Amino acid sequence: MDTTSIHELDFIQNLRSRAAGKNASIRLGIGDDAAVLRPPRGSELVVTTDFSLESRHFRRDWHSGASAGHRCLARGLSDLAAMGAKPIAAFLSLALPAGTLRNARSRRFISDFLDNLLKLAGQHSVILAGGDTAKAPGDEILADIVLIGSVPAGRALLRRGAKAGDGIYVTGHLGGAAAELEALANSPAKFAPATDDGTHPHLFPTPRITVGQTLLRRRLANACIDISDGLSTDLHHLCEESHVGAVVEAEALPLGGTLDQALHGGEDYELLFTSPKALPKKLAGVPITRIGTITPRRSGIRLRANGRLAPLKPQGWEHRF
Amino acid sequence: MDTTSIHELDFIQNLRSRAAGKNASIRLGIGDDAAVLRPPRGSELVVTTDFSLESRHFRRDWHSGASAGHRCLARGLSDLAAMGAKPIAAFLSLALPAGTLRNARSRRFISDFLDNLLKLAGQHSVILAGGDTAKAPGDEILADIVLIGSVPAGRALLRRGAKAGDGIYVTGHLGGAAAELEALANSPAKFAPATDDGTHPHLFPTPRITVGQTLLRRRLANACIDISDGLSTDLHHLCEESHVGAVVEAEALPLGGTLDQALHGGEDYELLFTSPKALPKKLAGVPITRIGTITPRRSGIRLRANGRLAPLKPQGWEHRF
Repeated sequence: MDTTSIHELDFIQNLRSRAAGKNASIRLGIGDDAAVLRPPRGSELVVTTDFSLESRHFRRDWHSGASAGHRCLARGLSDLAAMGAKPIAAFLSLALPAGTLRNARSRRFISDFLDNLLKLAGQHSVILAGGDTAKAPGDEILADIVLIGSVPAGRALLRRGAKAGDGIYVTGHLGGAAAELEALANSPAKFAPATDDGTHPHLFPTPRITVGQTLLRRRLANACIDISDGLSTDLHHLCEESHVGAVVEAEALPLGGTLDQALHGGEDYELLFTSPKALPKKLAGVPITRIGTITPRRSGIRLRANGRLAPLKPQGWEHRF
Repeated sequence: MDTTSIHELDFIQNLRSRAAGKNASIRLGIGDDAAVLRPPRGSELVVTTDFSLESRHFRRDWHSGASAGHRCLARGLSDLAAMGAKPIAAFLSLALPAGTLRNARSRRFISDFLDNLLKLAGQHSVILAGGDTAKAPGDEILADIVLIGSVPAGRALLRRGAKAGDGIYVTGHLGGAAAELEALANSPAKFAPATDDGTHPHLFPTPRITVGQTLLRRRLANACIDISDGLSTDLHHLCEESHVGAVVEAEALPLGGTLDQALHGGEDYELLFTSPKALPKKLAGVPITRIGTITPRRSGIRLRANGRLAPLKPQGWEHRF
C-alpha cells in the first residue's frame, strides 16, 4: 500500500487514527507495507472486492456521501453474508479528483463517505486495515473495497449445493431498492436527507451478516447467494453452480416494489438460499420467506404466476446511470 | 464480487479459465460471492492493495499493456516481499472505458495487460482468485490489485524493529527506474517494444519475493520496507516506525541512475532493510549492498557525501505524469 501519493498526509493520518479499533484477528493495520491478519484457528478466509465508482455505482446528485460510503462497504459485507462469514477487515482504495479536499462541498462528501463507511464497519467489528490512495485521473471519485471474513474450515456457504426438493428462501423484501432508485431518479432532492434508519433499501441497504452466520452455524442452507444483480439473475447463478432447476411462486414473493422490480431489480442485498428444512418465519430477527422449490435441472428455471408456469429468464442487472 | 456488470461475459469466462492454477491455500477461486483461502497452519496472512490508474500510474503512450500489467502485479508483490511473505492470491478489480473491448488496439492493450499480469503471477504461484469488473466512468483504464500472502505467525518483517548499530542494506540497484522513466518521457517510442528481460527497472521491475522470504527465514533483518517512494522517503518511513536515525554513505550506493535518482527516484521496488549481521554479497542470487548504518534517533537521518554529513530529507515520490 502506498499512502503518500495523494500528498494529503493529514487526511491519511486522520483516517489511520479513526480506523483504530479492536478485532482479535488484526495483528497489524494501516502503516506498514501490508496488513497482517491472524485468522481464527481452524478457519478459512473469505475475500471479496467491489468497485464503487462515481457515475457508475453512485452519483453525487442522487447519493449523499453518507449513502455512498454505506453502500461501498455494504456491497462487500453482503458478499461475506452470502458465504456465512464473520467479518474481520476492510481495505479501501480511494482515488480523489484533483482539488477534492480543497472544495468544501466535496470535502464534506468524502468526510460523510468515510464517516458512514466506518460507522457500518464498527457495527460489524470490521477494522479498516489498509488500502491505497491516489489522485483520480478524471473528475470522478473512485473507490474499491476489499472485505475479508472468516468461516470454520470447509463450511463456507456456496452457490453450489442446492438439491431438488429444497425450499428456496429469501430474507427481507425484494424490489425495494429498485423502487427507491426509480424514485430517486425522478426526484433526487427529495431523498437527499435520507438517513440510515432501515427504511431506505437502495440508499442504505442492510447486509444480512447475522442471518448468513446463523445459516452456516445451524447448517440450514445447502446453497446461498446474495441478491445483488436481481432475483432472476442471481437465482440463475445459484442454479447453474448447483446444476439444478427451480420454480418460483410469484404470489409468495415478499414485495418491496413491483413484481418486476422484485424479480429483476438489483441491489436488494438480501440473501437467497435453499434449505431442505422448514424454516421459521424469522432468523436472527429478519423475516424469511419461502418463495419456491428447487427442481431437477432439466425442468429449467420457471416462474408460476396466475397458475401458469413460464420460463424465468435472467434479466441481468444493468447499472441505471 | 460482481462479474456481470461489464456485460462482457466471454471476457470474464476467459479470465476465469486462465486464472485456473494450483496453490494449496486456495479453496475456491473466481465464481462465487467470494473466494475462500485456507492459510497454511501456524501462519498469518499479509494483505496489500495498490491502484494502477491510467494517466497516474501508467500511460498508454509510454507503457505497453505488457508493462502496465506487469507493474500492476509487481507493486503488490513488492509489498509482500517487504513483509517476507509467500504469495498466495491476487484479486484484480478492473474498470474499462466504454468500447474498450470493441477497439482492436485497446483490446490488445488489455489482453497484453492480463497476459503479463498472469505470467508474473504464475512465476510466483499467485492465483488470480477474484476481483470485480465495471465500466469506467471516464476514458481511463482503472485497476486495483489486492495481494495476499502468508508468513509464519509473528514473523512478518516490519518497518519497526531497526536498532542503532544495524547495517542498512538494499537489494539490486537504485535509481534505475527513475532513469528509465526519464528516458521514456523523452523518447517513448524507443521503449515501446521493451520486454521483461530484467533490463527495464521501470517498465518491468522485479519484485524481491525470494530475498524477502530468505531474510525472514534466516532471521537476518530487524526491519524491512520496499523502495516504492524513493530511498530518502522510504528510509524515513522505516526510521520513523523504528524510532531511530541513520547515516547513508553516498559512495556506497549501488547506482542504477544518477545519485539524485538513487536517493529520491521512486519505484525501484528494491528492498531496504537493516541487519545486525555482516551479510554476504548476494542473497537468493540478488546483489546486496550495505549503504549505511542505523543510529540513535536524536542524530536524525543523514547523508555522508564527499566526507561531509548533511541531513537527508525525504523528497517524496511525486508521480511524474
